[in-house]
Amino acid sequence: MKTKDELPVCPVATAVSLVGGKWKLLIIRNLRMRSWRFNELQRDLEGISQKVLTDSLRQMMDDGLVYRHDYQEMPPRVDYSLTELGEKLLPIMDALADFGNYYKSAIK
Amino acid sequence: MKTKDELPVCPVATAVSLVGGKWKLLIIRNLRMRSWRFNELQRDLEGISQKVLTDSLRQMMDDGLVYRHDYQEMPPRVDYSLTELGEKLLPIMDALADFGNYYKSAIK
Repeated sequence: MKTKDELPVCPVATAVSLVGGKWKLLIIRNLRMRSWRFNELQRDLEGISQKVLTDSLRQMMDDGLVYRHDYQEMPPRVDYSLTELGEKLLPIMDALADFGNYYKSAIK
Repeated sequence: MKTKDELPVCPVATAVSLVGGKWKLLIIRNLRMRSWRFNELQRDLEGISQKVLTDSLRQMMDDGLVYRHDYQEMPPRVDYSLTELGEKLLPIMDALADFGNYYKSAIK
């Protein structure tokens, strides 16, 4: 997890440093629904590489936004979900969805 | 401007396709305050290249989010601002700012 000193002064820039980039926002969109396994996420997020998905999940885990649940089963079962802190991202998701819907209604 | 058929079905993915990426969100953060000249934006957005700023502004102009005002003066005077459609992005900016502030208060 970053310390306060490592984050930008601007709160928008702070949020962008944590979840900016296309893929993180789309991963969060999925995780808000339920827990997802890695392979499920990769299948659903068309075009994401294994490396980018791994890195994105790892960064969001480091930043305290995503929780990795290892069920300690055989065969291995692991899934990812939002932490309580990660759930604070949901208003951003709602605002993105509202804008997406508005934009589509506004254009031809 | 894209047509409806060119946009993803998912409204979050639609919004991300329009403003996803670190720099567009930071440009919009600035343009919400007032009109900005190109050189001003480039100075303020530390680390952005001329090409990325040009491309980002052009894409957002194509998508109807940003307006380029050429005052037809000599020496040339041009600035950029949000269109009415672009102002519909402001709830996203507010949600990002709220999250950034919350995150900073939540971490050490």
